[in-house]
Amino acid sequence: MDERIKQQIQFLVELDKEKSIVRQTYLANGARKENDAEHAWHAAVMTFLLSEYTNEKIDVMHTVAMLLFHDVVEIDAGDTYAYDADAKKTQRQREEKAADRIYGMLPDDQKQKLRDLWEEFEEGKTPEAKFAHVMDNLQPMMLNVASGGKSWEEHGVHLSQILERNKKTAEGSEALWEYALQEWLKQYTQKGIIVDDLKGWGIDGR
Amino acid sequence: MDERIKQQIQFLVELDKEKSIVRQTYLANGARKENDAEHAWHAAVMTFLLSEYTNEKIDVMHTVAMLLFHDVVEIDAGDTYAYDADAKKTQRQREEKAADRIYGMLPDDQKQKLRDLWEEFEEGKTPEAKFAHVMDNLQPMMLNVASGGKSWEEHGVHLSQILERNKKTAEGSEALWEYALQEWLKQYTQKGIIVDDLKGWGIDGR
Repeated sequence: MDERIKQQIQFLVELDKEKSIVRQTYLANGARKENDAEHAWHAAVMTFLLSEYTNEKIDVMHTVAMLLFHDVVEIDAGDTYAYDADAKKTQRQREEKAADRIYGMLPDDQKQKLRDLWEEFEEGKTPEAKFAHVMDNLQPMMLNVASGGKSWEEHGVHLSQILERNKKTAEGSEALWEYALQEWLKQYTQKGIIVDDLKGWGIDGR
Repeated sequence: MDERIKQQIQFLVELDKEKSIVRQTYLANGARKENDAEHAWHAAVMTFLLSEYTNEKIDVMHTVAMLLFHDVVEIDAGDTYAYDADAKKTQRQREEKAADRIYGMLPDDQKQKLRDLWEEFEEGKTPEAKFAHVMDNLQPMMLNVASGGKSWEEHGVHLSQILERNKKTAEGSEALWEYALQEWLKQYTQKGIIVDDLKGWGIDGR
């Protein structure tokens, strides 16, 4: 048993590196960018409070587990910024290699379980994976709004990019997507912080 | 419904402050101290992998929820270092006031649920709360070991203090406590990094 615990602990110490992987999202107070561990925690606590808005019934525990571990591969593969088209081309290959190495540290049964959980998230087809993606997308959006749109502004993000990234968000939660559209995206597009390349809110005030 | 979502989002943005509450534990690489959000995430992922070592059967989801939210009160009350006897005297009072304000931001049903979850953790009597305390205590111990005992050394921590803080850890998991004793505490006491005020391992090599 000691050998098993030792393997599990080595893996858990390895995961500590997620705290040093910086994302493009600023904290709500704008002081610094957040890291993968903080993002995963925030997406998980959001799930507990917002799972009532899911379209289909979900296993909340399974969704939370998915979110807590969803960025493990970034320890080797790095954070791929949502609006970096070049990096996105090699993302899957880099992340699979990372999954082999990092999940490979675990005892076989847990290696398989966590690998399956990550693949389920990546495929995005189960109700749990769909809702996990809603949380993964809305968490940084919420912080962008809280910090006055700092990251959108820095990267010159266009409305079409945000809508493309969120084309499946309504599949996980119509209610939350509608809230995000009306309360966040509309306002920040009208303010000119999100570049309105669709004239979606500029002309007809949709 | 929009009013309800708004309240929930305001609470979730408030929780972002946990990312700025610094603890006394260093990251595994020793580069900096970790914060409450990172600690909660790490304790939660540990729970998924180590819950097989619980003494009594636990609801893993309930335990994970407890850990993800257990430090919310520190947003107002601050982190009380485990070995700061003076701060510990006023801790409960400071934290109750914080719980009133912060959980008070939520819709009534969720306010009550999260408050109950926190009280359950604080009381430490259910199997889930006992195991959550094992995770809460072993997570920083694991990082102390990974970083070469940096935080123990800085604070001149004595073996008796660690044993006192962990006097109930075996109630949650005998297997993990035995592992921590043999693999971590014994080694760091023998190295002289933890001050051996009990001569527990100095003389008879227990």
